[in-house]
Amino acid sequence: MGGDGGIDVTVPAAAAMTARAEVVLVGDRERIHAALPAAAPELTVIHASQVLSPRDSLADVLRRRPDSSMRRALACHAAGHVDAVVSAGDTAALMALARSQLGMVAGIERPAICKDLQGMRGRFWMLDLGANIGCSARQIQQFAHMGVLLARHVGGVARPRVALLNIGTEPGKGPDVLNEAADLLEADPRIDYVGFVEGDGLFADIADVVVSDGFAGNIALKSIEGAARMAMHLVQNWLGSLSVLERAGLLLARSKLAALRHELNPQGYNGASLIGLAGVVVKSHGSAGREGFQQAIEEATLEVAGEIPRRLAEGSADPDPAFSPS
Amino acid sequence: MGGDGGIDVTVPAAAAMTARAEVVLVGDRERIHAALPAAAPELTVIHASQVLSPRDSLADVLRRRPDSSMRRALACHAAGHVDAVVSAGDTAALMALARSQLGMVAGIERPAICKDLQGMRGRFWMLDLGANIGCSARQIQQFAHMGVLLARHVGGVARPRVALLNIGTEPGKGPDVLNEAADLLEADPRIDYVGFVEGDGLFADIADVVVSDGFAGNIALKSIEGAARMAMHLVQNWLGSLSVLERAGLLLARSKLAALRHELNPQGYNGASLIGLAGVVVKSHGSAGREGFQQAIEEATLEVAGEIPRRLAEGSADPDPAFSPS
Repeated sequence: MGGDGGIDVTVPAAAAMTARAEVVLVGDRERIHAALPAAAPELTVIHASQVLSPRDSLADVLRRRPDSSMRRALACHAAGHVDAVVSAGDTAALMALARSQLGMVAGIERPAICKDLQGMRGRFWMLDLGANIGCSARQIQQFAHMGVLLARHVGGVARPRVALLNIGTEPGKGPDVLNEAADLLEADPRIDYVGFVEGDGLFADIADVVVSDGFAGNIALKSIEGAARMAMHLVQNWLGSLSVLERAGLLLARSKLAALRHELNPQGYNGASLIGLAGVVVKSHGSAGREGFQQAIEEATLEVAGEIPRRLAEGSADPDPAFSPS
Repeated sequence: MGGDGGIDVTVPAAAAMTARAEVVLVGDRERIHAALPAAAPELTVIHASQVLSPRDSLADVLRRRPDSSMRRALACHAAGHVDAVVSAGDTAALMALARSQLGMVAGIERPAICKDLQGMRGRFWMLDLGANIGCSARQIQQFAHMGVLLARHVGGVARPRVALLNIGTEPGKGPDVLNEAADLLEADPRIDYVGFVEGDGLFADIADVVVSDGFAGNIALKSIEGAARMAMHLVQNWLGSLSVLERAGLLLARSKLAALRHELNPQGYNGASLIGLAGVVVKSHGSAGREGFQQAIEEATLEVAGEIPRRLAEGSADPDPAFSPS
């Protein structure tokens, strides 16, 4: 029921993904059926009588909306009826309900938000993107392990390189907690730690996993989105500045221009993982369209296929160090 | 003497700016004369026998390089021989030497690094971009005043709107210190405070001055640079993907394509202000070319013309509140 486009986005997107996953829709049954495309396959719909609103406080979300679609979907996951939950609703609400419904993996102190972005060579995973402000070095190390797990078992990166997001690359730069985390990662035999990375190196194939607390990670991600939108705006202005003749010349390259615009779109790859939970929960960007929501569903199927929760739980049962991402 | 390109960048750039400023070059006299273009006007050269190296510690910079070009240039400024210093050297070294040579404006606790970027409508000023990790709410308020001063008297923005960089726009979001700073700015009659802004809103003409501590600001700025470079990379790839025929079609729009590439270049506007000091000091990006270094010189001339140090000093002499940016 969530996201800017609501069920007009989520329902058709879900209907288009039935070859990849057995999709269960949770929300207002009548509205969902009305939004289903005519030719859509038969989908399971679980009714929920309430929808969370952006004005709901976390107390509302957790205690005063017992039949919200988000809560019901997560309860289905907790009960084992589904393997993953995908939502376009509010991130803080999703994180709070997921923690209360699914619980954390033992040994992980804090859940994190992780997303992969396209770099100049390959994709890279960033976490935490906003779940935690102010983390300990030990928590940052746990984020590194979780990121490695996703890069390896969802992204297929055999030996993910890990970097810490900082405001300088030399050891000693930036906040103390990052230097403590650097020491932990350096000494961690399961981590291929490559050092600090700055924002301008994120896309330069320096690391496969870039770790930070949720404040720095969110600032970086949102700034990237802002800059990407600015770049698209400049490309649009450029197109608008062309004469009829110049535009005619460009017509030949039109389909490839559409591909460029797609690649410049910061929402081109949608779906952030809520990681550290005893389950698979993927957050779709509120402004994502149908294609974007399909990508979020695809991300969930990949995490299920990669057995992320099991690996996380097994790893974290290791006595010392806390867990192995292998 | 500083920057990736050294005097091959700075000297010709300075020689090209003599119509805008009376340029004094400080560094190795012989090498500077050798780097001067044949047709260059007569420029004053002040010899300095040492050049700072990236391997120099701050203790080296401050105590063991008494005749470094950077120190000598700042000493010239402190003695009143020049109105501003422009350097492509190390930021931390420049900040440390500038503080020791010029001193701070009374009433300002910390200097900040400020830079303006092109947004979708107009330019906007960001600070602090890396001089201070962990600031008090009061220091953030001082940064806001300094940013307003630059936006107004260098940028010509009559009533600059001020926002705080955060990871959510609703009051209460993010770290406590930002919410304390929001209260201070809200209550400050000299500040047109418009609330929190996220990274994805930086370019969207929400604010003219975006304030943060140096950690968040640096993460945002560098991430923008990284994303902009990624966008340029995608445009390059797109051009490379075109067939001969498609490229021929594009030839018509070639000059405008060059303009687009220029606008996408994150170094398109170069020159960061070290603000809060009793003087005008502009840092040119280490990787800036001649045109970029000229922009940094231009920025310095604008700050001198805008009488930034005087306004800062007069404002900060106000008993309560600490100073007025008007």
